Amino acid sequence: MTDYKNLLKKIHEKYLPSTKGSLASYIPELAKIDPNLFAISITTVDGKTYSHGDINSFFTLQSTSKPFTYGLALMDHGPEFVHQRVGVEPSGEAFNSIIELEKNSHRPFNPMINSGAIAVASMIQDKLLDNNEIYIRSDRMLDLFSSLCGKKLEINEQVFLSEKKTAHRNRAIAHLLRHFDVIGNDIEESLDLYFKQCSVEINIIDLSQMAATLANQGVQPISKIKIYDEQYITDMIGLIFTCGMYDTAGAWAYQVGIPAKSGVSGAIFGVIPGVMGIAVYSPLIDDHGHSVRGVNAIKDISQELKLNIFRQQKR
Amino acid sequence: MTDYKNLLKKIHEKYLPSTKGSLASYIPELAKIDPNLFAISITTVDGKTYSHGDINSFFTLQSTSKPFTYGLALMDHGPEFVHQRVGVEPSGEAFNSIIELEKNSHRPFNPMINSGAIAVASMIQDKLLDNNEIYIRSDRMLDLFSSLCGKKLEINEQVFLSEKKTAHRNRAIAHLLRHFDVIGNDIEESLDLYFKQCSVEINIIDLSQMAATLANQGVQPISKIKIYDEQYITDMIGLIFTCGMYDTAGAWAYQVGIPAKSGVSGAIFGVIPGVMGIAVYSPLIDDHGHSVRGVNAIKDISQELKLNIFRQQKR
Amino acid sequence: MTDYKNLLKKIHEKYLPSTKGSLASYIPELAKIDPNLFAISITTVDGKTYSHGDINSFFTLQSTSKPFTYGLALMDHGPEFVHQRVGVEPSGEAFNSIIELEKNSHRPFNPMINSGAIAVASMIQDKLLDNNEIYIRSDRMLDLFSSLCGKKLEINEQVFLSEKKTAHRNRAIAHLLRHFDVIGNDIEESLDLYFKQCSVEINIIDLSQMAATLANQGVQPISKIKIYDEQYITDMIGLIFTCGMYDTAGAWAYQVGIPAKSGVSGAIFGVIPGVMGIAVYSPLIDDHGHSVRGVNAIKDISQELKLNIFRQQKR
Amino acid sequence: MTDYKNLLKKIHEKYLPSTKGSLASYIPELAKIDPNLFAISITTVDGKTYSHGDINSFFTLQSTSKPFTYGLALMDHGPEFVHQRVGVEPSGEAFNSIIELEKNSHRPFNPMINSGAIAVASMIQDKLLDNNEIYIRSDRMLDLFSSLCGKKLEINEQVFLSEKKTAHRNRAIAHLLRHFDVIGNDIEESLDLYFKQCSVEINIIDLSQMAATLANQGVQPISKIKIYDEQYITDMIGLIFTCGMYDTAGAWAYQVGIPAKSGVSGAIFGVIPGVMGIAVYSPLIDDHGHSVRGVNAIKDISQELKLNIFRQQKR
Repeated sequence: MTDYKNLLKKIHEKYLPSTKGSLASYIPELAKIDPNLFAISITTVDGKTYSHGDINSFFTLQSTSKPFTYGLALMDHGPEFVHQRVGVEPSGEAFNSIIELEKNSHRPFNPMINSGAIAVASMIQDKLLDNNEIYIRSDRMLDLFSSLCGKKLEINEQVFLSEKKTAHRNRAIAHLLRHFDVIGNDIEESLDLYFKQCSVEINIIDLSQMAATLANQGVQPISKIKIYDEQYITDMIGLIFTCGMYDTAGAWAYQVGIPAKSGVSGAIFGVIPGVMGIAVYSPLIDDHGHSVRGVNAIKDISQELKLNIFRQQKR
Repeated sequence: MTDYKNLLKKIHEKYLPSTKGSLASYIPELAKIDPNLFAISITTVDGKTYSHGDINSFFTLQSTSKPFTYGLALMDHGPEFVHQRVGVEPSGEAFNSIIELEKNSHRPFNPMINSGAIAVASMIQDKLLDNNEIYIRSDRMLDLFSSLCGKKLEINEQVFLSEKKTAHRNRAIAHLLRHFDVIGNDIEESLDLYFKQCSVEINIIDLSQMAATLANQGVQPISKIKIYDEQYITDMIGLIFTCGMYDTAGAWAYQVGIPAKSGVSGAIFGVIPGVMGIAVYSPLIDDHGHSVRGVNAIKDISQELKLNIFRQQKR
Repeated sequence: MTDYKNLLKKIHEKYLPSTKGSLASYIPELAKIDPNLFAISITTVDGKTYSHGDINSFFTLQSTSKPFTYGLALMDHGPEFVHQRVGVEPSGEAFNSIIELEKNSHRPFNPMINSGAIAVASMIQDKLLDNNEIYIRSDRMLDLFSSLCGKKLEINEQVFLSEKKTAHRNRAIAHLLRHFDVIGNDIEESLDLYFKQCSVEINIIDLSQMAATLANQGVQPISKIKIYDEQYITDMIGLIFTCGMYDTAGAWAYQVGIPAKSGVSGAIFGVIPGVMGIAVYSPLIDDHGHSVRGVNAIKDISQELKLNIFRQQKR
Repeated sequence: MTDYKNLLKKIHEKYLPSTKGSLASYIPELAKIDPNLFAISITTVDGKTYSHGDINSFFTLQSTSKPFTYGLALMDHGPEFVHQRVGVEPSGEAFNSIIELEKNSHRPFNPMINSGAIAVASMIQDKLLDNNEIYIRSDRMLDLFSSLCGKKLEINEQVFLSEKKTAHRNRAIAHLLRHFDVIGNDIEESLDLYFKQCSVEINIIDLSQMAATLANQGVQPISKIKIYDEQYITDMIGLIFTCGMYDTAGAWAYQVGIPAKSGVSGAIFGVIPGVMGIAVYSPLIDDHGHSVRGVNAIKDISQELKLNIFRQQKR
């Protein structure tokens, strides 16, 4: 049996000394982080967690939240509705590109880039409960994410407000989505939900459990609670694989070969269907917005454990 | 045990009546084909072949040849050399796009689009043998393809000459590749090799064996001859998955989830690592250049046999 | 001496029967206009005005306002400041394109397209008067435009509010300009000024006097009041010529050869330096947003009066 | 009366010491030139020539040839035929761009960029004379250019062969034009004519006479021979103005305001309709391919002589 604990320790030691990359600068909150933070965690589909490093450090989900909100939109509306508004093609453009919207289709390329994620966020609406109370959209998102981690999560208000104030490009994207009738008049509410899902605070063990839930067909591997319908899990993992690493998705698929999603906070996770979720956090990011130590750590884990999905495998 | 024979028969009957799509018109030879031709074949990694339909009809490989020449370039030069000249990213553009070359990198997005395949073809050079004879490039390619099928293949000269004469866009691409120093001065020879690899004539059983060789880690499953080094097989399958279906690669990954490559002759093949190769031929193609019956047949086979690579699987 | 009065009458009769084009639909106010309205006016640099048709119909300036606000920005800040933020190149894109901002320079191509005009509007700031009163930006613009017409103009509030509410694309542009630091935090104020300058209401005689002021080196030809510094007039006319007709600027220069600017309300004006201003109003517009009757009328006037600036001329 | 001779001397002295720019490197022949060469010449419509500097140095026309071949195509086929194949819009792209051809129209933006000039060259065909002799296309071009200079011109064979051998991008453009049916099967002949017109050798006085012929409505001002039909002169000058300076055409129109055309050999000419032709030669070119000293000299001449076409002028 693989000694996961020792593997994570070895990889942690290998990459800790490297100080390549830089802190995300576009919101002040992210620029203040300790650049040496580095944590790795694995959660298997049978509910065991192995971790190493700064496992008590909290960070915000940022773009790693995108697949999970996308899954909620699928459950609310079904794939047909969702994909009339947002495509499933890799974009070849950077994560925050606005150009694609001007092109033929006038809809975002996929739910993993900002334009697509904002469109997906706009699909998460308030819900009228049986007792006539309103279950507001941001609570729905936060409760879902909490159930993925088996504990009550919170939004980092400072990060949320900072994003809300400075995200001029995302605001431009939202207005253009409105122009093309991809989203409705609740532009501000849609942006707020998007900024909030990006500002949810977790630690590395939480993230590995979120990833493991996808690996385990939508069932949280510790609580055994069914969170996503099985039928949508394949869609979610497929999109993570082809689009999760933005304009480096091809190189990632080629070199690493496991579905993975990164965020500018320095979080990154990988999903091995039927096996495990892997999560790494380290805030120094490269030009594409991926955690440098995170990318290296996942590459090494993939090689050591032979996780490349295109390797020969028995079925 | 799955009754493959019966499955293929059932799918064949289901899609034969549909006459959607049209014959490729860009070369006269392809426009003369009988539109009702339809053949399906599966070859498993343990060397069994199941097939149905027009299994004695011959057709040209067209773009289904691209991964196999790419594998030869990897063996000749190694991945580093190859990918300094050709990228690994899905393009978001059509298969014959020339725009990407004008952009930042001045190299083709990947080996599966025409510009990348022409660049790859230029890497296959004549070889001086020990007896001082010259092993010319087109013989090298043809011998390789022949070994993949376990029989001597031939080039359809009419198709080759027709392509050579009418392929103005591919010629434009080649000159632009020369301009950006992606290829050398042997422009005409590179184009000739590319046109020849597209004009190799096979039947559906041959194509399923070619695909099965990739599924079987580079070993031809019937002759047991090692054709590609194992280390390059993962690269080849990875690129087929992310780039093989051009600008519909994302939708294909999302809906079907198996690595596949299509050609305008109406050929299409899929690779299930460790399991089998699937091949379909039917000359009516859609706007993206994919065989209509072929796409549907592979979708059905994927669903029936639960082949989507993102489904949960035991390891 | 040319019988201008008769020429205008002849051209009016020629094009009145044609009902080509359609009413601008993007704001409800413009879609309600009588499509048969048609008025032409010429004002010479020595202050004579000739007109024909619906000369008492009022319409909003829309994009015909852009050169006049641009001139105000030049006077406030000088060309160097203005053109660090907005270029002087024809765009080859439609008037409302957002793509160019994503490209290299991150500044609008020129002040005649929407992005450039919004950037220019942001340069018009409130002014502190000697008596410590604040001269607000929209009053500054409106007073300037009024002096160009020699009478007090007003803003059509319905059109203004309608634009403000529905202009999602312009709002997207403004946020993207903010993202690239082309404009500051007063996004809403900048958009308001832009929507207001577009909503100023005039008749055809007013517009011909505005154009004639440019033709007369910045001096209103009737009141003889100096409105623009002479040094900026050449810049304004030059930009009108190369960029005023958007992506048809080349065809216009080629076929008509006079500096002209159109607006989606159906207004269009031409400037013949040292000679006259020409204005036409007719609300049926073509796919590029130009008045169909307006374009034809100015073409005819240009030919009849031999106004093409590239024709041989004595100096 | 203006002392032209002295003005040219003054400007020559002002810019000779500057060594900004670099020699064109894309063909070896151009890279060998003496970078200090600098010559200016003016020819008025009444046939007087004033010049200064290296007036006996010969250089090749390069892109300054484009308007003159375009005029020949207009006379051979009329504007309708020509402009079904080549547009009249400024491109916003560099002179050698290939991207625009992939876009909607599949025809070159205008005759001043390489793609448009190659398409125009393809329209110049051999002519069967009354005596059944064939008047070959390159002789037709060379005779026309010779008549513009009032003397027998020759092609620099070294430059021609060098261009023919190294112009991979132009060859790519030609094949793409063929693909889109803008040109016919005589690709090689069309390229040859284009390379030859670029390789015609002249001195600065010749070039000023060529420009002056356009300024003089198509009549060579010294020989008084009618070379271009008057009706096409306006078209030619209009296109020179809007497209002659490529992606800096807007800035040029804005800052200088006279129709001008440059070539990578360091030649540049301006046309003042009804007044004069101006020509400058100096081989150090900027990033856009314009002669640095040439641009400065024409700017100064324009200012000194008040030639900006948008300045107020009496008619």
